[in-house]
Amino acid sequence: MKLAILFGGASFEHEISIVSAITVKEKLGAFDLSFIFCDQDHTFYRIDPSKMKAVTFSRGEHRKMPRLHMTNGGFEEKGLFGSKKYEMPVLNLIHGGDGEDGTIAAMLDFFGIPFIGPRKEASMLSFDKHYTKWFAESLGVKTLPYEILRKDDKRSVSTPYPFIIKPARLGSSIGVSVVREASELDYALDVAFEFDEVVLVEPFIAGVKEYNLAGFSARGEITYSIVEEPQKAEFLDFEKKYLDFSRSGKVEHAEVGDALVAQLRESFAKIYLPLFQGALIRCDFFEIEGEVYLNEINPIPGSMANYLFDDFGGSIQKLLGALPDKRSIRVQYDYIHSISQAKGK
Amino acid sequence: MKLAILFGGASFEHEISIVSAITVKEKLGAFDLSFIFCDQDHTFYRIDPSKMKAVTFSRGEHRKMPRLHMTNGGFEEKGLFGSKKYEMPVLNLIHGGDGEDGTIAAMLDFFGIPFIGPRKEASMLSFDKHYTKWFAESLGVKTLPYEILRKDDKRSVSTPYPFIIKPARLGSSIGVSVVREASELDYALDVAFEFDEVVLVEPFIAGVKEYNLAGFSARGEITYSIVEEPQKAEFLDFEKKYLDFSRSGKVEHAEVGDALVAQLRESFAKIYLPLFQGALIRCDFFEIEGEVYLNEINPIPGSMANYLFDDFGGSIQKLLGALPDKRSIRVQYDYIHSISQAKGK
Repeated sequence: MKLAILFGGASFEHEISIVSAITVKEKLGAFDLSFIFCDQDHTFYRIDPSKMKAVTFSRGEHRKMPRLHMTNGGFEEKGLFGSKKYEMPVLNLIHGGDGEDGTIAAMLDFFGIPFIGPRKEASMLSFDKHYTKWFAESLGVKTLPYEILRKDDKRSVSTPYPFIIKPARLGSSIGVSVVREASELDYALDVAFEFDEVVLVEPFIAGVKEYNLAGFSARGEITYSIVEEPQKAEFLDFEKKYLDFSRSGKVEHAEVGDALVAQLRESFAKIYLPLFQGALIRCDFFEIEGEVYLNEINPIPGSMANYLFDDFGGSIQKLLGALPDKRSIRVQYDYIHSISQAKGK
Repeated sequence: MKLAILFGGASFEHEISIVSAITVKEKLGAFDLSFIFCDQDHTFYRIDPSKMKAVTFSRGEHRKMPRLHMTNGGFEEKGLFGSKKYEMPVLNLIHGGDGEDGTIAAMLDFFGIPFIGPRKEASMLSFDKHYTKWFAESLGVKTLPYEILRKDDKRSVSTPYPFIIKPARLGSSIGVSVVREASELDYALDVAFEFDEVVLVEPFIAGVKEYNLAGFSARGEITYSIVEEPQKAEFLDFEKKYLDFSRSGKVEHAEVGDALVAQLRESFAKIYLPLFQGALIRCDFFEIEGEVYLNEINPIPGSMANYLFDDFGGSIQKLLGALPDKRSIRVQYDYIHSISQAKGK
């Protein structure tokens, strides 16, 4: 089965996308894989599978490889004697900007290239943590209370200490800080505003239980992963999380009762359907006093959360068989015809 | 001053985009204009200015014109003896799907092509009337109460009659009905669900005052248009609105007091800043008992609402001089370097 892994992107998560792609390559050995790298200048390159190593990119060796152009139906490679088209489904594995903000989804959709990944609307609602709050609230899925601060706002927060500060539009813990007292606030905001104009403030609950659940829908049925209780230092900084993107070993199903699993799945389904169809997503939840709270939606989770699925290859195959079609619109020029007739031309 | 008008698109508003482009051509005579047509199959064509007539498109004559490809920095035209690049700012005049849903914005941004029009995030929030409600609410801008109905939901509405039914994601009055009694509900829903899976129900207030205000921000200052009180039949159906897209004559400033103008401008500014920078938008408001309510945001208004500006050409020029830059991210491969060093390679 042919599949192109699209990775890289002009984003703070460029490097973890490379790590993700290398990990997914190992896990999808049964597929006929192509690799398409989106460089930070937005040039696409076809990467020889044998060159799928981190140093290929850090040394700039990818720039010697064939260039690709996105075009109707697939990626095109121009050669001396004509051009070759790569027409196959794409797995969008660009984390962060470009990949998770809806840009790549919009382009793949525009060019009619089938892909695994969130569609542009789903991307925008999950990429911005502020919009995720609106979205979850409208679905009746609980989230922690929050405040929004903009770069030019007065730096005052009414959430009691300790609280957590996050750039609104980044994943992978970049720019995230726990603030325990007033003296730490300015620095934490400086860090977060390095990455975004808008930051989110949420209460920090020490020792809160966290549960991650991944899944996807195909042919009217959701396939859920196991529930993971992520191992964590107090929380993950970027370097630890970076290593996390190369995870490929199986993890244990968390020791949770059936009632909690049912709650997690119910919240997952509310979020997933119908907007995330075509994507394999991971939702990260908190459990507080028996209630489930959505922490965040990862619409392109690190290494596609392969380690949470018993049969990752089979899952990807199942999802590939059930990608949503973009509804096509047929323009008939009825109005122009009727107006032209009325004018007598 | 060079400017490319991008119009067409695979959307129900394809034809009105053509009409808009023809109208804007008349109004921007002082510019050095190019015309780029996006066909319903997503092929781009360069249209000779002398062929900017509706029948060019309804007869399919555009398909004999040179094809363009979107690429880094501009649109490219391939010829027998090499290729030519059109590097100039673009006015995104694709109404509805493709143009107003964030697709074209994502692509232009990805390829680093400067453009007038809403950015993808602004597009998403204005394209879907449901998200516009969330957005306005978060800004403290009033909107009418509403209900959401999905295609598979039970067809029961709790808003009292008469109410208005709108597809969530279309502009130009397509699929919109006023429902006065229970017997009209099914048909109105059938019509709306032809165009979208999600519909919005809002109270219909006969004779409500409507005011439209357009504007844009450049160099820290918002330029407002005059306030228009749109002439209307009870409400505009698509054919009437279609003709509305060809408007080029000046309109009268509505007879409104300074206090209302100030309220309208205040609401406009809350909506516009900072998300809509780079766009010239028109906000349509209701006035009910002295209070201003947002009806909808038109981030690419018909014929760019040229008829509301005293100096439309000057306004476009001012906006072109102040287009937002997409923040570029420099990937340094720090993590890959440090991990490679730790591994000793």
